[in-house]
Amino acid sequence: MTHNSRLAVSVHILAYLAHRGSAEVSSAEIARSVATNPVVIRRLLTTLRQTRIVRVRRGAAGGFALARPPSAISLLEVYRAVEPQPGRALSQFAPNTRCPVGERITGVLTRVFERAQAALEAELARTTLADIDRQLHSVCPGKAAGA
Amino acid sequence: MTHNSRLAVSVHILAYLAHRGSAEVSSAEIARSVATNPVVIRRLLTTLRQTRIVRVRRGAAGGFALARPPSAISLLEVYRAVEPQPGRALSQFAPNTRCPVGERITGVLTRVFERAQAALEAELARTTLADIDRQLHSVCPGKAAGA
Repeated sequence: MTHNSRLAVSVHILAYLAHRGSAEVSSAEIARSVATNPVVIRRLLTTLRQTRIVRVRRGAAGGFALARPPSAISLLEVYRAVEPQPGRALSQFAPNTRCPVGERITGVLTRVFERAQAALEAELARTTLADIDRQLHSVCPGKAAGA
Repeated sequence: MTHNSRLAVSVHILAYLAHRGSAEVSSAEIARSVATNPVVIRRLLTTLRQTRIVRVRRGAAGGFALARPPSAISLLEVYRAVEPQPGRALSQFAPNTRCPVGERITGVLTRVFERAQAALEAELARTTLADIDRQLHSVCPGKAAGA
């Protein structure tokens, strides 16, 4: 699974939980909606639970639900929960510091990448799960019927 | 090499060529500045040549140089040359279209990812190789001495 598909699958999981409202949903049910291996879903649910985006109730009638209202969960929060640290981009970059370019390029690139990352994150911060839920149901108003 | 380090190494290559001005530079010399395998450098140079960001002169006194002034090469152009297509993020995402969420989530996510990608690209478009070159030499004014 690529990094971006971790985010895509996570947003799908959360959009599904938003769609199901206050129901307690099993990982198997979510896996059927995403149409992927339940192990992948369970791993992402573990991460999303550790970062307090979803909550779990154990037992026969238990399952997963959003920990907060969809309007209080931004895609930036999901992105930060499931993506590797952005600083990692330059972790394997170790230029020759005896060269005048190699000596300073890491600092220059770090600033450029930080600005690009900040632009991307600002855009993700603008969208909440409530926005996603609205977009999912704007085409077809029969939400309850489809659940 | 991760995607982001392809961009980092490419910007390093081009910053080095900008630093060397109109000189024809060998891939071996660039590899010494980046401190990485010359094969990696030659592959990226091939891509940067195909996308007309660098030019090559063959022969004994030959080598690589920027195809245009540093002020006419943006980091967005470099990013688009060396990164895989951003649309690829959802290529392996195939949710259950018989589920009301799975049916529409791909379209919703595509729009969200396109906006985030556009924000990142707008930021990269704002920086040129001339800006990078200025930042590299703002600390130490002795550019010619270091070459």
